[in-house]
This record gives sequence, structure tokens and C-alpha cells, in this order.
Amino acid sequence: MSEILLNDKRVDYSGVLKPIDDNEHQRHLLSIDQLSVGGFYKYLKEAYAASAIHQTGINLLPRQTILPLMRQPSTRTAGSFAQAMHKLGGNSGHYGGSQSSSEAKEETRFDSEEAFGTQIDIYALRTEEEMGPAFAATVLDDDLEKGYRDYFVPVINAGDGKNEHPTQTIGDFYTIHRHFGQLEGLNVAVVGDYEAYRAHHSTLKAIAKMGMKAYVMETDFNQIPLDIKLSLGDNLVSVNNLNDALAEVDVLDMGRFPKEYKGDDEKSKKRYEQMAKFYLEELMVDYNRLQLMHRDAIGMHPRPKGPEYALSCYKDERMQDVRQMYNMIPSRMGIIALHMGKSIANELEAQGVEYKNPLR
Amino acid sequence: MSEILLNDKRVDYSGVLKPIDDNEHQRHLLSIDQLSVGGFYKYLKEAYAASAIHQTGINLLPRQTILPLMRQPSTRTAGSFAQAMHKLGGNSGHYGGSQSSSEAKEETRFDSEEAFGTQIDIYALRTEEEMGPAFAATVLDDDLEKGYRDYFVPVINAGDGKNEHPTQTIGDFYTIHRHFGQLEGLNVAVVGDYEAYRAHHSTLKAIAKMGMKAYVMETDFNQIPLDIKLSLGDNLVSVNNLNDALAEVDVLDMGRFPKEYKGDDEKSKKRYEQMAKFYLEELMVDYNRLQLMHRDAIGMHPRPKGPEYALSCYKDERMQDVRQMYNMIPSRMGIIALHMGKSIANELEAQGVEYKNPLR
Amino acid sequence: MSEILLNDKRVDYSGVLKPIDDNEHQRHLLSIDQLSVGGFYKYLKEAYAASAIHQTGINLLPRQTILPLMRQPSTRTAGSFAQAMHKLGGNSGHYGGSQSSSEAKEETRFDSEEAFGTQIDIYALRTEEEMGPAFAATVLDDDLEKGYRDYFVPVINAGDGKNEHPTQTIGDFYTIHRHFGQLEGLNVAVVGDYEAYRAHHSTLKAIAKMGMKAYVMETDFNQIPLDIKLSLGDNLVSVNNLNDALAEVDVLDMGRFPKEYKGDDEKSKKRYEQMAKFYLEELMVDYNRLQLMHRDAIGMHPRPKGPEYALSCYKDERMQDVRQMYNMIPSRMGIIALHMGKSIANELEAQGVEYKNPLR
Repeated sequence: MSEILLNDKRVDYSGVLKPIDDNEHQRHLLSIDQLSVGGFYKYLKEAYAASAIHQTGINLLPRQTILPLMRQPSTRTAGSFAQAMHKLGGNSGHYGGSQSSSEAKEETRFDSEEAFGTQIDIYALRTEEEMGPAFAATVLDDDLEKGYRDYFVPVINAGDGKNEHPTQTIGDFYTIHRHFGQLEGLNVAVVGDYEAYRAHHSTLKAIAKMGMKAYVMETDFNQIPLDIKLSLGDNLVSVNNLNDALAEVDVLDMGRFPKEYKGDDEKSKKRYEQMAKFYLEELMVDYNRLQLMHRDAIGMHPRPKGPEYALSCYKDERMQDVRQMYNMIPSRMGIIALHMGKSIANELEAQGVEYKNPLR
Repeated sequence: MSEILLNDKRVDYSGVLKPIDDNEHQRHLLSIDQLSVGGFYKYLKEAYAASAIHQTGINLLPRQTILPLMRQPSTRTAGSFAQAMHKLGGNSGHYGGSQSSSEAKEETRFDSEEAFGTQIDIYALRTEEEMGPAFAATVLDDDLEKGYRDYFVPVINAGDGKNEHPTQTIGDFYTIHRHFGQLEGLNVAVVGDYEAYRAHHSTLKAIAKMGMKAYVMETDFNQIPLDIKLSLGDNLVSVNNLNDALAEVDVLDMGRFPKEYKGDDEKSKKRYEQMAKFYLEELMVDYNRLQLMHRDAIGMHPRPKGPEYALSCYKDERMQDVRQMYNMIPSRMGIIALHMGKSIANELEAQGVEYKNPLR
Repeated sequence: MSEILLNDKRVDYSGVLKPIDDNEHQRHLLSIDQLSVGGFYKYLKEAYAASAIHQTGINLLPRQTILPLMRQPSTRTAGSFAQAMHKLGGNSGHYGGSQSSSEAKEETRFDSEEAFGTQIDIYALRTEEEMGPAFAATVLDDDLEKGYRDYFVPVINAGDGKNEHPTQTIGDFYTIHRHFGQLEGLNVAVVGDYEAYRAHHSTLKAIAKMGMKAYVMETDFNQIPLDIKLSLGDNLVSVNNLNDALAEVDVLDMGRFPKEYKGDDEKSKKRYEQMAKFYLEELMVDYNRLQLMHRDAIGMHPRPKGPEYALSCYKDERMQDVRQMYNMIPSRMGIIALHMGKSIANELEAQGVEYKNPLR
């Protein structure tokens, strides 16, 4: 993993990466590794509750501000976090690149994170570097411990380089659970770039954790990172081609070819070409190919997408990738609520609101 | 008109362009063509009500978010929609260009609009292309029909290429009605680029609809689009020079020379030069020229403006172009409220608030 | 001072720069010169009250919008004003550069400020030019007087060129007062670029006003502006080197080397080099040097910072520059509240809330 230097020394992230247990309000959300099975379902339970009041929202976090800072271009994720906070009665800071920030005045990343930490209540951070949100969390916790600020500011990993994108996975699994009424025992074809596509990393970890099976097609140039592979164990099913997987799975989880990670060296360039060819020749899905899946299966994609799904697919009502984006709002409402020490589910229960929540 | 391809085929916009009647909460606002006379006055009635609580605002749309996305540079219109939503108790998504969005990751415009549709409650969209907002509305409605989202998201045309800018016209006519207490029977000199200046298109359509007269100076290189001309019929009065118009009108509606539409081909370049000359030699207004208008007439401009009005004009209290911008806030409050299924006028009536509203 | 032309003539700013007295809600905040001693303490009293409800906020300004427009790159100050407004229950307009605004359509600065004035409730403005916020205030007041808008919009100077940065100073003095329980009689080493660093200008003026002493190291190429020097009188203590100052002061107020003001002419280039050398050889502070200060002294910096404070300093708990940023939120809450005609202190008193406020 690439590294961010904290005060010129390697950083020990163990303090910010510890298990969340039931202490969401005192923990950052940086990796699927931090979650227990029960903790994972807790987010889904909140998402069900949030869906019940999606349109009207709920006044749970008035005058609280999220900063969805995207150090890589994005409007999707930033807008989704902002809307989730609006629906909880809170506000969103300005999101966008960091081009116009004081880092242009030679401020260090350390100083910059310190500064953001003083003017927000919760921080959704995307970085080009792996562990960028963990770095920020370390900086913020350190300042809190020193008494520079008065209250804990949770950091939510909104995608860190090639590492993880845990809130995407939580939201995606909410879509899956809504459709199937369960997670355990489901088969998911995880298709795409296993090295660079961070959402797949979080998803593979969650598949292992939640008792599901991942159908994958590895090649010599497209390998699942070793630590993730080890955690999967028997939950990993290797297939030789996509069709073999489609016949077996409940979910097709297709990922974009992340071209932004094309490197300049010969090895990277070669892999890029191999991957591009692999995508074109092996991974494209159209309406006909979709028919290999069983009738109740669903097609998913953590947008944005390229041409992986042909337009013809969208004649098929099993495509759920727009609903998946929509479900990100209640999913992120739940994440924000829990890490701000609140519960939408408890609030609705206290108000006597009836709604569908199979996890209650 | 230029065209946006929807799934590789020409788009039928009839579904999103249908008459609004009294169904604002289930309709997009894309063109003046969608409005009846009564429907037009309904917006003005809301604007009067909104003006009564302009400073304090009213808690009508808590936790609802507008996204004022400007795909052409603008802070004016975006800020105006944002403030209108703030004054209704709601929130605004981040506005700005689309440079940093996921479209940079080769996402299609179709996918991008789909994505925005999942994370907002109402969408004010400006596009470089004609019918861009209609395109977005079609995408959003289609997703709703497919069950990808749970509720209708109204799209408000905040200016689409050279086509229309209906909310500008509604706001401008509110300023006119506030001053004269009526619309019908008024004479308006509509001055500027009849081909490229979209606000004039909406205004000419509204003049025809509301029983007013448009004084215009066409030349062989500056023609009102044929469909608009036909709709005007007897409501169009052609004059040879601006002075002849000024002596007759109640309103001077001056428009900016929209230089951004200067083309690269010879024909476009030639027209650009002709128009520039025309502006300089025929359309500039200073204090003295303003005196040709009668004492109760007013000078207007849908800012931003260039040198069309000399600084000397602003000694004359009949200049109303700043008030016109200010009036955009209550006007857009009314538009947002109606399309979100609310009414400021009804709310104030229910609260027993007394205020000036000649349209009540 | 550089100058902004208002309607082609020099501007008389006396109308917007007048003393604030107890009329904050009818005054702009542009310079420390506008404040009386009592008026200065009034801001601190509000900051104490705001600190008591920092985390939860208070619903004092619902549906009111601040526009923190930074015409120089900044996320710090803009985010701080936005958060302050959020914590008062209000909203923030989009902040960022002015690149994408209508000024790109050849709109004049005058027109642009007029436009912003019609769509906000309070305006925090940073400009590259000295007196830029005063220019905007003049434009806004003129429009109000002409009846173009219905209510006063206060302009807060968020840094104007090399001139002033009054809200930074008010916030910094709140940090000082919180630590020492007083301002009068304290000694402050003001260290940095006396010509270009605007925060130091506001601070030196405030030191004179509040009965404190400024320890400074002037050189032939680094002189305090004459008018500020005259106002300081006996409150100015000149020393030959930083160590002499450190032994005597309660506060080390270190400023960044503002490289953005490096000019192109020979004289400017020469001064730039002299200043860079001066910073490197005379002004760098590390842990050891910090020990020259007495045990209760504090180290401060109106971030962003460069290498002025070595990392080693942060082993010393007397460093208060992060707390200083954090304190900016309640400080700016107080400033916004007062200029919007409200008082957090009065509100808490009315609610019977108990909290630490030595200035009550």
C-alpha cells in the first residue's frame, strides 16, 4: 500500500482501525474489517428505517455538518452523502476537489486535515492514497486527545485509492437484502479489476463475513489481493468464464474498469492492455447474456459505469443498478446516524411509526 | 435544435413537455408553452406571497434538496435557486460546473442524469444543449416508471442552450406585475439577439400568452424564431429603430449580447460581427435615451449585462434590473413550492398572515 | 492601497466604515478601526456563549444564508464561516473561487456584487484587492437606499488583500482571553511579514485598542505600515531578535510568509529574497526555542502555516494553533449573530442556560 507520512514517520493506524462493536459514535468507519456480523446488520436495519422516511426525512441531526471531501473527482458519492445528511436534518459542507484549498499555499496534508477537523461534525473522505481516511482519522483523534477540540469527529472512508470503499458495500448489501430478504447463502459474481477496484475489495470482505459465496474469474494479471483471498477461504468459487458464473449466482456485481490507475511504467502499461482486452472479450454483458441468470437474480453496478452493461440489458427488470444508487441515500443516512450516536430505527420506534424492517 | 441522444435514438419529449394545468407537483417546468394563462398567474400569486416572507422565510420544505446544476458557467441562477430553497426551509446541493463529476470517468450523460435523479428532490438544470433539461426529465421519469426510485423529481429548466429560460420570464413578469398591477395590455420592447438569447424566447412566448405586445427590431441577420413569431401574431409590433419603440412601451427588456454562441464557421463569424455592430450602433441606451420612455415605464435586464445600459441610466429610478434580480428569489420560491406540491399563498392564508397580493 | 473603481470614480468608503457602536445589525465589519473597546469585548462575550453550545448549535437564524465568497483560494475561512452559520441553524451558499461566475461573461465587479447582494442574507467576502469588501458594502448599501432590495445585508471582511482580516483577530483574541482571562496588559510577539500579512495588521490595531503590547522586529525591508505604527504608540516594543521577544511575551503570534504577494518588479523580487532569508535565519521556531517563553505562554498561528513552527514544537502543550482554528467557529458564530441582529448570549440567558462566560 502506498503511504502517507505523518510527521515524517510511518503511521500506526491500529488506533483508528479497531473493531466498531456497538461504539459507532466513538469509531471511524474505514474498513469492512472493523465490522462484526451483527454490526453489519445494524447498518442494514438503519437503512430499512431510513427508507421508510426517505422522502420526508427526519429531524435527527439539526445543525450538524458533514464534509464530503473528495480528493478524487466525484459528484456521485459526495452528493449522496450530502443528501443523506440533508434528510437527517443536517447540512453539508462544500464538496469538490482540493485544488482551491490552502494546500495550494504549501500547507501540509497533516495541517489540512487538522483544519478540516475543526470545522465539521462528521467527515466523509475520499483520497487517492490508500489509508488516506485512516491518516485523517489519526490526525483528528490525536488533536482530540490533546484537547485541541472538544468532541469526536467520525471519519467515514468514502474510497481510499485501491484499498476499500466500505459504505458502497454496505449500501449494495442493503439492496441485496431488500431483494432477497437475506444475505447468508447467496452467490455473488464479483466481476472486474480485482487489483484496483476498491469497491470489490470491500465487497469480497463482506461476502466472507456474511456467509455468502463470491464467484470470481482470476487471471495471471488480475488477482485478488492475498489477504482478501485468505479471508474468503471456502467462500471463494473460481470459475473459468463469466457464463459459468452467471448460471450459478443470485447477484452479478459488475465493476467499472478503473482506467485512472493506468501507470506509466512498462509493467503497468502491459497490465492495462491485458485488462482492457479482458474486459472487452470476456466481461461485456448484454441482454442475451443476462438471460443466463435465474429469474430472480439481479444485476448490479456501483456506478459510474462504462460499457460493461450494454443498453439492451435495461429492457430486463432484473437490472438494479439505479435502485442501488437510490438505496445509497438511506444506507448512508443509517451510517451517518449511527456514527453520530443516533438511531433512525430507534427514533421511528419511539414515534410508533410502522414500516417494513425484516431486521427489527 | 441540437439534440441529445437518449439510448442512441431520437427522443420523444412529449411526455415531459405536456401542459402543467394544476398538476405542478407531477410536472416538470421546461417551457412557457406548458403554461395556461391561469397557470402563469398562479406562479405570480405565489411570488407575491413569497415576497411577504422573503426575509424570514417559511418552513415549507424541510430536509428537501434542490440541485441547481449549471452545465454552463453561472453563479447567478444557481445562487438564486439555492437561496429560494433555503428560504423555504430546504437545502441546496453543490452547484458549479460538471467538470469534476463522474462524466470525467467516461460516464454517459444518460447515466449521469440518472445518478443525480437518485440523490435530489428537485432539479434546476442549465445545459449548453437545447432540450437538455427535457432530456434529464425523460430519464428521471423513465426510472420512476421502472420503479428504480420511489418519488417524482421535478426538473426545472434553468436555461437550455438557445432555447428557453422560463423561470427568468416568470420572475421578470412578476417584477412587471408588481409595478403595473397588470400584464394584459402592456407594451414591452424586447431588445437584443433574437436567435441566441434564450430568455427573450421565453419572454416573447409569455407576451403572446398574457395578452401583451412585443416591440421588436428584426434585421435580416437577427430574426425571431419562426414558431415564436407565429405564436405572437398580432401581439408583435415591428419597429425600425429603438427610439420608435421606446416612445410606445411600458417596459424596455434589454438582453445581453450572448457572445458565448459565437461560432467558428464563416457564416457564424459574419453574423457575430453584424450583431456586434448592431448592438453598438443601434441598441446602446444611456440616460438621455431612457428619457424617451414615459414616466411610469421601467428599464429591465435579465442580468448579467454588458454595456447595453450606460452607467448614466442608473441616475434614473425607473431602472429596475436590480429589483428584478431580487424578485427572482420569491419568484423561484413560488416555482419550487408549487412543483414540490406546496403553496406559499395557501400556507400564509392558513396562518392568517395579511399581505399584499392583488392576485389572491 | 490598491483601488477598485466604483462607476469610474474613486470611492468614498466613509459610509461603510463608520463606527459600529451597538448597531452591529446595521453595520458592516470591515476593519478593527470600527470597534470600540466595549464593542470588541461584545464579540468575545458572544464567542463564550457560542462555545457553550458549539456542538449542538442553536436555532437562531433559520432559513438565513451566508455567502462566504473567497476571491482568493481558501477552504479554511469559507468552511469556518459556513460551519458557524450551520451551527446557528442557517445555511451557506456555495463557496469557492469566482472563476465560474458570470464575471466570465464580462460582467463588471460592480454588477457582480449587486447580484450577490440580492440572493444572500449576510456576506463574508475575501478579495485580492484592499477594500474589496468595503467596495461590495458600498454597492449593497447604495442598492438598499435606492429601494432595489428590502433589507440590509451586512458585509464581513474575510481578508482584503494586504489590508486587514478582522474576524481572524477577533477569534484569535478570544483564544487569548480564554487562556489568560484577560487581554489588557498582555504582551504579544507579532512575528512575520509586517507589510503583506493582513491578519497581523488587524492584530496590531487590536493590540493598541485593547491595552496590550506588541513585540516586533522590524527591519529596513519589513516595516509596520505607518498608520498602524502611529496608532500603537507606546504599545509597540521593538526588539532586535526573536529570542529577546520570547523571553518577555505571553503570546507568540507567528504568521505565514505570504508568498502570493511576490511581485514581478526588481524591488519586489529583492524584498522577497530578503524576507525569505529573514524568515529562515531569524524566525524559525522549534521546541528548544519555544522554551524561552514562560510556562503559561502560548504559541499561536492564524493557519495555514508553512515551516515557521517545526514539528518538534507540537510536543509542547503550549501550542494553541489548532484550538485557535477550532475557536474560530464560536467566534464567527458570535460575529454573524450580532450582525444579523441577534445575540447568542442573550438567547442562552433567556433560556436559563448556565455556562462559563467571564465577560457576562
